[in-house]
Amino acid sequence: MGKLERTLGRIGVLDQEAMRAARERQNKLTKPPGSLGRLEELAVLVAGIQRTPCPDVSAKVVFTMAGDHGVVEEGVSGYPAEVTAQMVYNFLRGGAGINVLARHVGARVVVVDMGVATDLQPHPQMVVKKVRYGTDNLARGPAMSREQAIRSIEAGIEVFEDELEKGLQIAGTGDMGIGNTTPSAALAAAFTDLPVEAVTGRGTGIDDARFAAKVRAITQGLALNRPDPNDPLDVLSKVGGFEIGGLAGVILAAAAHRVPVVLDGFISGAAALVATELEPKARDFLIAGHVSVEPGHRAMLERMDLKPLLNLDMRLGEGTGAALAMGIVDAAVKVLNDMATFDQAGVSEAL
Amino acid sequence: MGKLERTLGRIGVLDQEAMRAARERQNKLTKPPGSLGRLEELAVLVAGIQRTPCPDVSAKVVFTMAGDHGVVEEGVSGYPAEVTAQMVYNFLRGGAGINVLARHVGARVVVVDMGVATDLQPHPQMVVKKVRYGTDNLARGPAMSREQAIRSIEAGIEVFEDELEKGLQIAGTGDMGIGNTTPSAALAAAFTDLPVEAVTGRGTGIDDARFAAKVRAITQGLALNRPDPNDPLDVLSKVGGFEIGGLAGVILAAAAHRVPVVLDGFISGAAALVATELEPKARDFLIAGHVSVEPGHRAMLERMDLKPLLNLDMRLGEGTGAALAMGIVDAAVKVLNDMATFDQAGVSEAL
Repeated sequence: MGKLERTLGRIGVLDQEAMRAARERQNKLTKPPGSLGRLEELAVLVAGIQRTPCPDVSAKVVFTMAGDHGVVEEGVSGYPAEVTAQMVYNFLRGGAGINVLARHVGARVVVVDMGVATDLQPHPQMVVKKVRYGTDNLARGPAMSREQAIRSIEAGIEVFEDELEKGLQIAGTGDMGIGNTTPSAALAAAFTDLPVEAVTGRGTGIDDARFAAKVRAITQGLALNRPDPNDPLDVLSKVGGFEIGGLAGVILAAAAHRVPVVLDGFISGAAALVATELEPKARDFLIAGHVSVEPGHRAMLERMDLKPLLNLDMRLGEGTGAALAMGIVDAAVKVLNDMATFDQAGVSEAL
Repeated sequence: MGKLERTLGRIGVLDQEAMRAARERQNKLTKPPGSLGRLEELAVLVAGIQRTPCPDVSAKVVFTMAGDHGVVEEGVSGYPAEVTAQMVYNFLRGGAGINVLARHVGARVVVVDMGVATDLQPHPQMVVKKVRYGTDNLARGPAMSREQAIRSIEAGIEVFEDELEKGLQIAGTGDMGIGNTTPSAALAAAFTDLPVEAVTGRGTGIDDARFAAKVRAITQGLALNRPDPNDPLDVLSKVGGFEIGGLAGVILAAAAHRVPVVLDGFISGAAALVATELEPKARDFLIAGHVSVEPGHRAMLERMDLKPLLNLDMRLGEGTGAALAMGIVDAAVKVLNDMATFDQAGVSEAL
């Protein structure tokens, strides 16, 4: 049995007893019951994931996984492909959006080369799990082989487990890959059966000509490759990407190790679809950090029955929305752990 | 000329040059233009408020103002009136929701007795600006005199200015006062001319009988007192509260001193209505932290043309929503100040 199957087999269910105890404590805290809304629900969820009425999400990690995409040759992106590698260096120097927002919430960023098209200069903070030098063009054939799809997921599991040993109580997902809203939209269309136009957006802000090329590339790729929605590995290999597979691995490993995962936007949503289609139980370990401007993101969240925490018109990726939302989850957990009860504070309860 | 008139006269407009410079920098940072959505807009707004392209919101203060309400004798609340004072002690001991969330974002909490119905034990961290021992019952006559309405606003200005001297770059508003969603709904109805039922909610979670009593008390109070919506001081005195007046003072003083103000929910919204009806220019210095479960809150925000940052089904008050949102504003400012530019990072720009 391989690493992927073992990980899928380890995924359990929420601990109802820990959630009951957390809910009971919520109702003793000096506030009207339910008055902190989603903060209360979040803390109870994390209690159920971590199997304790006193959860802890101090140790935060954002996994920012990078890969290149053969489909950029169809003219689907507004940025040249070399930006993927340039942005990886920017992450490693701490100058990107995800670095600023991760520092803001006290998370460390783990940068992973899952399949950048060039060799990157070694860096002590970069994890190299390169499956290949970029995917093939999904509009002309499968993006990768089935073996590479499995390899990408298993690499994500390995990265997660290495970080778990260093201390990790909540994970965030993030991505970098010029062109990667194209495979993400293709995955959304394959799994939800929605029309390509309904799940395809403007990515970094492309013009009408590039948007038309993008819809055409996805439509053609789906028609040619015929991904089987009942076989998530088939879908990932036909129209996915290496960073998407890697993030699916992070998500599955987090669920297997009972660590809450805060999802970023559209690309992370595609990874979460792959993960939850492989093992629906993984869904209960996910927190949708925000809803992206990308129109297909809502469809993904609806399919997984996840309600986003934030709606700030963001569409950068990298894990930026996940990082911001990790701060909210942290706040929710602190409320549960640190507020005084009615008894402790000598405050009268409701009439 | 009194303190209130002087403060109103000092309120200026956003600095367009600082905003232009901040926007220009946003477009040089290593991200597709606009891809951080509302974070980008927020940072540009704070630049315009603070008159600098490099704004700073490190020094954060939440003003949590407390007062009692004569209208509780109509049976409008689910909690006994003594909870107002009990919760003030909870704030001072650091055990309330606002304390936990303020610590989370690095804000200090300034607790102000604006009109609690009992004498509170002195505490080094409590500011006493007691206008009176609670308002009169607004269902039976004016809540306070016009002089007391002015006094409450001016007390808020004084509290703000005292804190400004200690260091204050962003303010949050918060409230405590059993029964205070009743005057807030009355203020909303008076200023928006919406039906009382449309702006009245369940507050801490009251049952149908108390809800009916609440609608009745507000309807009766408006009919009896006939507050003049063109005279905000008349509205505040007829159907307001001392903590609401105090928060209106904080808001006006912040606008006068060019400090961004993050609003909490329904009671802070009522205070913001009073402030912006007195001086519409104050509106540009406001950030709506979140939208409350209270149905009247949306109507308030629409009247001020403010779009809330967070929507987490919260309805606690105290400044909890403002504190959480201050963390988002802080993140937005850090993005503007700390991200690398395309030039610095050697990243290619759009095709």
